[in-house]
Amino acid sequence: MDFSLSAEQESFRDRARALAVGTLLPAYRGRERIEPELRKEIGAAGLIAPELPAGLGGHGTDRVTAGLVTEEIGRGDVCVGYLQVVGSLVGQILAGNAPELAAEWVPRICSGEEIVGIGLTEPHAGSDAGTPRLTARRDGPDWVLDGVKSLSFAADAAAVVAFARTGPSQERGRDISAFLVPLDRPGVTREPYPDMGTAAVGRGAAHLDGVRIPADHLIGAEGRGFSQVMRGFDVSRALIGLQVLGCAAQTLDETWEYVTRREAFDRPLSTNQGVAFPLAEAETLLDAARLLCLRTLWLKDHDLPHTAEAAKCKWWAPKVAHDAITQCLLLHGQYGYRTELPLAQRMNDVLGLQIGDGTAQIMKLVIARQRVGRELAP
Amino acid sequence: MDFSLSAEQESFRDRARALAVGTLLPAYRGRERIEPELRKEIGAAGLIAPELPAGLGGHGTDRVTAGLVTEEIGRGDVCVGYLQVVGSLVGQILAGNAPELAAEWVPRICSGEEIVGIGLTEPHAGSDAGTPRLTARRDGPDWVLDGVKSLSFAADAAAVVAFARTGPSQERGRDISAFLVPLDRPGVTREPYPDMGTAAVGRGAAHLDGVRIPADHLIGAEGRGFSQVMRGFDVSRALIGLQVLGCAAQTLDETWEYVTRREAFDRPLSTNQGVAFPLAEAETLLDAARLLCLRTLWLKDHDLPHTAEAAKCKWWAPKVAHDAITQCLLLHGQYGYRTELPLAQRMNDVLGLQIGDGTAQIMKLVIARQRVGRELAP
Amino acid sequence: MDFSLSAEQESFRDRARALAVGTLLPAYRGRERIEPELRKEIGAAGLIAPELPAGLGGHGTDRVTAGLVTEEIGRGDVCVGYLQVVGSLVGQILAGNAPELAAEWVPRICSGEEIVGIGLTEPHAGSDAGTPRLTARRDGPDWVLDGVKSLSFAADAAAVVAFARTGPSQERGRDISAFLVPLDRPGVTREPYPDMGTAAVGRGAAHLDGVRIPADHLIGAEGRGFSQVMRGFDVSRALIGLQVLGCAAQTLDETWEYVTRREAFDRPLSTNQGVAFPLAEAETLLDAARLLCLRTLWLKDHDLPHTAEAAKCKWWAPKVAHDAITQCLLLHGQYGYRTELPLAQRMNDVLGLQIGDGTAQIMKLVIARQRVGRELAP
Amino acid sequence: MDFSLSAEQESFRDRARALAVGTLLPAYRGRERIEPELRKEIGAAGLIAPELPAGLGGHGTDRVTAGLVTEEIGRGDVCVGYLQVVGSLVGQILAGNAPELAAEWVPRICSGEEIVGIGLTEPHAGSDAGTPRLTARRDGPDWVLDGVKSLSFAADAAAVVAFARTGPSQERGRDISAFLVPLDRPGVTREPYPDMGTAAVGRGAAHLDGVRIPADHLIGAEGRGFSQVMRGFDVSRALIGLQVLGCAAQTLDETWEYVTRREAFDRPLSTNQGVAFPLAEAETLLDAARLLCLRTLWLKDHDLPHTAEAAKCKWWAPKVAHDAITQCLLLHGQYGYRTELPLAQRMNDVLGLQIGDGTAQIMKLVIARQRVGRELAP
Repeated sequence: MDFSLSAEQESFRDRARALAVGTLLPAYRGRERIEPELRKEIGAAGLIAPELPAGLGGHGTDRVTAGLVTEEIGRGDVCVGYLQVVGSLVGQILAGNAPELAAEWVPRICSGEEIVGIGLTEPHAGSDAGTPRLTARRDGPDWVLDGVKSLSFAADAAAVVAFARTGPSQERGRDISAFLVPLDRPGVTREPYPDMGTAAVGRGAAHLDGVRIPADHLIGAEGRGFSQVMRGFDVSRALIGLQVLGCAAQTLDETWEYVTRREAFDRPLSTNQGVAFPLAEAETLLDAARLLCLRTLWLKDHDLPHTAEAAKCKWWAPKVAHDAITQCLLLHGQYGYRTELPLAQRMNDVLGLQIGDGTAQIMKLVIARQRVGRELAP
Repeated sequence: MDFSLSAEQESFRDRARALAVGTLLPAYRGRERIEPELRKEIGAAGLIAPELPAGLGGHGTDRVTAGLVTEEIGRGDVCVGYLQVVGSLVGQILAGNAPELAAEWVPRICSGEEIVGIGLTEPHAGSDAGTPRLTARRDGPDWVLDGVKSLSFAADAAAVVAFARTGPSQERGRDISAFLVPLDRPGVTREPYPDMGTAAVGRGAAHLDGVRIPADHLIGAEGRGFSQVMRGFDVSRALIGLQVLGCAAQTLDETWEYVTRREAFDRPLSTNQGVAFPLAEAETLLDAARLLCLRTLWLKDHDLPHTAEAAKCKWWAPKVAHDAITQCLLLHGQYGYRTELPLAQRMNDVLGLQIGDGTAQIMKLVIARQRVGRELAP
Repeated sequence: MDFSLSAEQESFRDRARALAVGTLLPAYRGRERIEPELRKEIGAAGLIAPELPAGLGGHGTDRVTAGLVTEEIGRGDVCVGYLQVVGSLVGQILAGNAPELAAEWVPRICSGEEIVGIGLTEPHAGSDAGTPRLTARRDGPDWVLDGVKSLSFAADAAAVVAFARTGPSQERGRDISAFLVPLDRPGVTREPYPDMGTAAVGRGAAHLDGVRIPADHLIGAEGRGFSQVMRGFDVSRALIGLQVLGCAAQTLDETWEYVTRREAFDRPLSTNQGVAFPLAEAETLLDAARLLCLRTLWLKDHDLPHTAEAAKCKWWAPKVAHDAITQCLLLHGQYGYRTELPLAQRMNDVLGLQIGDGTAQIMKLVIARQRVGRELAP
Repeated sequence: MDFSLSAEQESFRDRARALAVGTLLPAYRGRERIEPELRKEIGAAGLIAPELPAGLGGHGTDRVTAGLVTEEIGRGDVCVGYLQVVGSLVGQILAGNAPELAAEWVPRICSGEEIVGIGLTEPHAGSDAGTPRLTARRDGPDWVLDGVKSLSFAADAAAVVAFARTGPSQERGRDISAFLVPLDRPGVTREPYPDMGTAAVGRGAAHLDGVRIPADHLIGAEGRGFSQVMRGFDVSRALIGLQVLGCAAQTLDETWEYVTRREAFDRPLSTNQGVAFPLAEAETLLDAARLLCLRTLWLKDHDLPHTAEAAKCKWWAPKVAHDAITQCLLLHGQYGYRTELPLAQRMNDVLGLQIGDGTAQIMKLVIARQRVGRELAP
């Protein structure tokens, strides 16, 4: 066992920390969009999906490094962390299943030039990604897509990886194919969702109305897309964990600072056990959740099973992070409630990641199924 | 023991429910101000501080009735519930300590014509209301006030009940007097706070710069204001509990409705234990917290000790309500995260009442002190 | 609404408190059996099922009074509280469904002369009481019973109310009849269960091997026993809540006493927020849970629906009580861990009531079904 | 980072697992003493304090290995795990501060021949080890000790490491020296504590009445013993975490097995989300807590700061383990409540480790002090 970081890991982490604290954090509050220039700055620093191969614009690091980067970025701006999470996921899907598309798109993802979104869910379906209503039918050299997909970066994404039905089955997970759908095609309309948080992520819908894409934009084998693509989600579950834990850790740092400085009843707030103990508890849980996430990435790096481990990260880390931030906000009293401090925005941003990419309930199902098999699990 | 409502209690409750569901709820989302017309409509229905004497514009009900009204109003718009809480508190303070001011102001509070705010805390002090920096010095027929007070309805209040130092002591709770300060005087500046929630309440500051008020605007005895006024807070703690519990109960109703209608994995969400059980738990806790609040008001109605009981209401009911609403939001999945539904706004509104009027830590101190005495409590 | 007690309620409560504190509490630790003399003393004081009609040996009080008595008894010895819970339940079943059996048995229950147990579950079935394997077949003037039932007071009960299959259906809840089975008959063997707590209750099994009982020992209509008898359980759920809350309240009293007396780091333990706050929290929850239970009994007293309310009591009060006692034990440090204090015994006794009479999961099902109907509930 | 085990670590872990499952587990229930033969078997397998130097009877492994061993032993019998925890602690204290005593005693500890206990606390003092009443005064070639110490293995320990006042100061932590006190001397009386759990550990008191020990039985410098010895406790806090997590993990394994086998309402219990989800949650928390403990040991192995990290292990892992075991017990229904299964014993055994070696409150103080310094911490 070794809990130290390699020189490369430290170097990426430090670079991410510098950018997070120096560039992202000061403008976090009120940021409504991740401007292309900012994206490119992050990409130029090697901080988007560094685990992807150098030939595709990445740096060929391990996934632990990608996790450390995502954590640090989350410190500065948890919304910017979506670039890492989505970039890693899309990059991995394309690199693993569609070499030509990867060669074209992944370098632009890593450099921050473009965002390629993930269109897994649809408005009607929530956590149940296995029953898309989006259809794709072959028409000569093209696929023609009809339906609607929800995605992060709905306004800014240049393309989206989307599931569609390509066959007659209505069964869950059957006859589903994955496509890369450029969003500049005729028939595409974008709709923003009025979310309570993650404004800079701009979640929304892409409505596809007879959208034609070339045949080679199929990702992987026809009708097999579901299981191919879903495999990539284990990694993003661990990355999401680190993204929100970084945000919570930064909040905790700021809160210790506040409670040692602020006085009430003639002494620093921090000298009250009723103040310091909840923070000590948060320290513990954030630390533990972080190790869970890093361990999951390490398992993936070593081709070891990590599905249950990833599900643990996904239900627990966002909950721990959200609870910690809420506690920190409360300990700031009325100041915490104001939007002058970033606490409220962080609380609302992080809440979204208790939902996105699979609810806690889904994750507990995954853990149970991994433990006792699908037959004996709920 | 009797858990039934009297005909009068039912009548007030039903009237409040009708107004809450018919008028308040449809416009809750996005309401940025409680317009004077709406205030007057609520006042005309007898729903602001009905426990105040008929001679002062109230209806002479018991405080349990005031609680039932506040709960129902909270169902429709938790922010509007501040009218009840603040109105009851100010009405009680004036009626009990300053009959002439009461005769002038309380009828206008009950009718909704005016709001009189409570200026207990100051920006520097949070929960520690016993050390105001606001000073009042006697100058001929006037008191001259200098300092700043935080209050709800900072923009709309016609006046504020405020604590000020009127003597040399710097000791906590000593040499403090309470005043009714009309906010249309020269030297008053209002500042809105940029809060994350309760927009319609418009919390902010009143800066008092050499503000002159007549000598008869002193409330109660000079230098004794602190303990006189603080006594009234036990009632508002129970009212706040009901205000947020009403909001949470409405949210729970809507969530049961949603989860029985929405399907995932081919069956209604509600048929999942992982969905229904957290709601059943929330049902239980909301129900229990409600009884705690009503019991506290009943104790006050019967002149029985209720300080510890009120503190229990204040720390626990807002926590239970906030947790329940957060859980409901999460069970709505991505829909819950959108501001099209009122869930996000409610969650953020209710959060403020975990802070305002005394944090959980203060309340636990109160409970401990009531139990073992000040010497042996923390 | 009225949260005060009537003179009669106070009188019963005070009598129960006196007996609990004077007689039960001093010998609680290590009590391995409720001796017949003790039972009779409690019965003579009118403290077993006082809500039963005077004609049957009770006092015709309301059920709230029975609850108050059970709570006080729980203060002294939570195991003795089983006399109240089981006595009320059996008394109600017999009085409501079998007048002649009631006339014979209930007076002896109320006087403490005899215990009649409840044989609802069987070793194979746990919470699922609707599928008994115990069979009863008619043979001339007798019913002949074969099978096994679990019950409290397995060693001491003179008889047991038991469910048995009396028809061919294997469906849940169908063809089930209830019987009063005297346990002094040939064919009865008793087996003690080696439980971790509630030693004085002596849970165990009654094995019935061709046991003959007269035809008139059928309770209610043949084949209809299940729903008739189950109705009575709502009341016992609320009584159980009070039984364990009384035990926890006593523990809390003792713990406040301890932490104000015991010093560490040169000051009383109670002056630490980390000590006093968990106790203040426990105060709040115990208080709230108590109101929930009393309200449920009041609903029953007034023939109002109370099934969901009873289920809330059953899952939550024992959990709250167990958590509070565990917390109290921990705050005693190493002393709490010793069996010289009653804390460990109470913790283990109360734990049993999170299981007995329906697990938390069953109760949450009940709440959900009452809310959305059986079709839409899990 | 590397989450894999070395061949040596795996070898120790496997050996410990084999002994735990093969020898310890079958006789865990009801074990009242760790017989000398069993101790020697464990010692002979190299499983007591293997991180101690080979020259002292250990195996010179890292502390991570000691942690893995302790975890596995905890699976079989959480009480036997005290041999590892106490052995490591005493071994480390002697090896680091008293080479001659170490040469004499440590090999016998590692071989299981002898137990040397830790007498840190006294009956009057609980968590506050810095103010012993035990005194040691120099008398010719001897120290003469008077007072009383609490310790594990009070009946079986051959000696105890104890703090005593050796100077006039009454200040916390000053003028305190550590001694190795053989318990076969005149003037030693042993008293067992009637604990609710950990029977096989036999906690109790050693009363020292004018007990003479040679001058060279002083450990470290006179008057400096407190800080020297306390340093060792960071490691034992992490070991204790693993000890109870092993116990909980074994319980979880057995519970999954039970809930997949046991049916209720015509399907395996495990197919209920209400059953499987709490287990999935426990899986997550146990896993996270385990990483926290192993990381702490790794920090110690690399001479990196680990005081806050150790405190996190100590408050959280025993809580997580106790909660998980309680949940598992409840999911077994009435079977869980019986002492035929090991669940009750484990629950009560593990509870003791929420108290022993520092309560949760103390640990949160440590975390806060490490974060903001002693002045600004509570």
